[in-house]
Amino acid sequence: MRTPDPDPNDDARPGPGVPFAAGLPGGFRSQGEADANPGWLSDVELAEARRRLPILYVEAVPVRTDGMGVVTEVGLLLRATPLGEMTRTIVSGRVRYGETVRDALFRHLENDLGPMAFPLLPAQPVPFTVAEYFPMPGISAFHDDRQHAVSLAFVVPVTGTCEPRQDALEVTWLRPDEAASEAVAADMEGGRGTLIKLALASVGALR
Amino acid sequence: MRTPDPDPNDDARPGPGVPFAAGLPGGFRSQGEADANPGWLSDVELAEARRRLPILYVEAVPVRTDGMGVVTEVGLLLRATPLGEMTRTIVSGRVRYGETVRDALFRHLENDLGPMAFPLLPAQPVPFTVAEYFPMPGISAFHDDRQHAVSLAFVVPVTGTCEPRQDALEVTWLRPDEAASEAVAADMEGGRGTLIKLALASVGALR
Amino acid sequence: MRTPDPDPNDDARPGPGVPFAAGLPGGFRSQGEADANPGWLSDVELAEARRRLPILYVEAVPVRTDGMGVVTEVGLLLRATPLGEMTRTIVSGRVRYGETVRDALFRHLENDLGPMAFPLLPAQPVPFTVAEYFPMPGISAFHDDRQHAVSLAFVVPVTGTCEPRQDALEVTWLRPDEAASEAVAADMEGGRGTLIKLALASVGALR
Amino acid sequence: MRTPDPDPNDDARPGPGVPFAAGLPGGFRSQGEADANPGWLSDVELAEARRRLPILYVEAVPVRTDGMGVVTEVGLLLRATPLGEMTRTIVSGRVRYGETVRDALFRHLENDLGPMAFPLLPAQPVPFTVAEYFPMPGISAFHDDRQHAVSLAFVVPVTGTCEPRQDALEVTWLRPDEAASEAVAADMEGGRGTLIKLALASVGALR
Repeated sequence: MRTPDPDPNDDARPGPGVPFAAGLPGGFRSQGEADANPGWLSDVELAEARRRLPILYVEAVPVRTDGMGVVTEVGLLLRATPLGEMTRTIVSGRVRYGETVRDALFRHLENDLGPMAFPLLPAQPVPFTVAEYFPMPGISAFHDDRQHAVSLAFVVPVTGTCEPRQDALEVTWLRPDEAASEAVAADMEGGRGTLIKLALASVGALR
Repeated sequence: MRTPDPDPNDDARPGPGVPFAAGLPGGFRSQGEADANPGWLSDVELAEARRRLPILYVEAVPVRTDGMGVVTEVGLLLRATPLGEMTRTIVSGRVRYGETVRDALFRHLENDLGPMAFPLLPAQPVPFTVAEYFPMPGISAFHDDRQHAVSLAFVVPVTGTCEPRQDALEVTWLRPDEAASEAVAADMEGGRGTLIKLALASVGALR
Repeated sequence: MRTPDPDPNDDARPGPGVPFAAGLPGGFRSQGEADANPGWLSDVELAEARRRLPILYVEAVPVRTDGMGVVTEVGLLLRATPLGEMTRTIVSGRVRYGETVRDALFRHLENDLGPMAFPLLPAQPVPFTVAEYFPMPGISAFHDDRQHAVSLAFVVPVTGTCEPRQDALEVTWLRPDEAASEAVAADMEGGRGTLIKLALASVGALR
Repeated sequence: MRTPDPDPNDDARPGPGVPFAAGLPGGFRSQGEADANPGWLSDVELAEARRRLPILYVEAVPVRTDGMGVVTEVGLLLRATPLGEMTRTIVSGRVRYGETVRDALFRHLENDLGPMAFPLLPAQPVPFTVAEYFPMPGISAFHDDRQHAVSLAFVVPVTGTCEPRQDALEVTWLRPDEAASEAVAADMEGGRGTLIKLALASVGALR
């Protein structure tokens, strides 16, 4: 069970949505940093940090709402693991150095759902839950054998068309009761079946 | 200071958005009720109930957000009191018998901002605060000399064009720091200057 | 299925915890009100109002927490219905005219759990959910054949000893996973099994 | 303006409240780690990480509440900066690798307020806000010239006696309106005057 990190170059390639990529004064970057790697970690450094520090993540449960704001569907990503196993997951990724939580959320939504998903980012900066992933199971409802990750989790309505990118094969839309079922939870990695239930509860759509 | 109730026929005229107007079996209505008044109170009865029961309200602070969900403006309604005095207020109104909170919120948004405001109702059913209006000042931050009203207050992004109806003269859009100022609070009735601050705090836009 | 209203004199007898019983100027009460009934409704009037207005309720899910604030147990009330059937419920009751939500919450906790329960009322005035009870099933997850009730629901840690009063026979303490089970939900009235799940989700104790 | 890190050995000395200090299997620690430094960072490593990763913090606004849960006072720490300047701050500190947010919150409360403060940790795991501290001012309301810190901020009632430890000189208890004043905000570092206002808003104590 791993927190998916779809883009292997995630930390070396700042995307267009990253506010600090160009505009920051040099002092914000660490000394001796090459232009090709403006302020983020090399793979080796990230691997090391993951054994020493809790890593900050954002996660988004994509939903469809009706005209009155009621959640009618939950979007789950179908993803193939390196071993070829199929799992379901949600939008998830790391917050970079210098990046706001909101920018990270938008960047990962675009990475995972494509540029035409048109997510409605929440006005509220408070997550519906803080999911704590530990390498050892049993400490919390969530685990990640790679790291100690602390994830700020949001419900995000999407209004456009999802075209999964990276290693996500497709987005499946489920009714709230289906999404909260034990069958779906069994397909989800790292305890994210619980995260789906907490997300549905936060919008009053869990029964 | 009164909780505005712009439509004098509010309780007698069910609008198109009211789910119970047609579909309910007769048993849901009180005995002897005329067809012209399907289930709500006469003015006299409402006036009496207002002296005996806490009355449930919904309120909405209309906001504009940027593409990332950050609140950039707050919309305040300019309204003339019966005495000709100008006050600022927000969207506010009673929840009818048989009406969901969400339907009441939508109905009052449409009543006060017009049919082209296109409000984005929140997926979350939980208000940012519960404002308790008492006839006597000093019990809470909020007062209403007409009744004991308990209001579920929401921040609602609007994406269209506001055309104030009823007795609202116009909608003024202010920056968050302007909306939270003492000068604006002094123009607002019933302690709603405090409500604006709590609304801005809930979206991280109060400094 | 009914919202329990254990004390038949609930509306006529102001208790010691009710802030308006003595201190209010006469103007706050309705005209012609006898001293024995200071500002609340007679049974007949309440029955009539219940067919015309949404009635404001508070509800509390009593919990035990460990020293770190983690919810370890949920307290459910065992109650006999007028027909002698046993049902499980939570702390629940009406907000009176002139009473704050917080005072109503405290009054009903004391009524249902006894004076030695020592509940820790939340600093936050915002409920974990707003439960809307309708006489007709299907409009929301909650129903009450007697009225349209809108309930502000809170999770309340209790630190003392519960001695159920009124018609509650006992308080049963269950682990969170037991309290969220379908078996328990089947014993609860008005859809409150869903309310328990939402309560547990709000404290991160639902899996 | 710096996020205070009172204990210079914070990362090397696991305290009694840290769950992972003893019980973890060796695999949870990085290779080559000496017994004296079980799993956390050296000062040099932490300094380096601070220039590369957002660092996860917890913060607590200590409050006193009355018997009904209403916030009556806010506790601010008086602290001397290395330059001898006096500033006001709140409880604040890093989340360690392997530590839960709740454990980190408890550890820093004990560190800053002493062992007799008896804080009531919230049942809810969701902060009232997520404060994002950046080295450059202007990106958010919060700044920290040392690092990019993301802080989960909680309101925590304390029921015992505070005996400030570390470099905190004293705890001053202020009324909510005093704590929210501009004068107090001017004495607070890193924009925490705003954090106090958001904390008070979350408990309905901001006017």
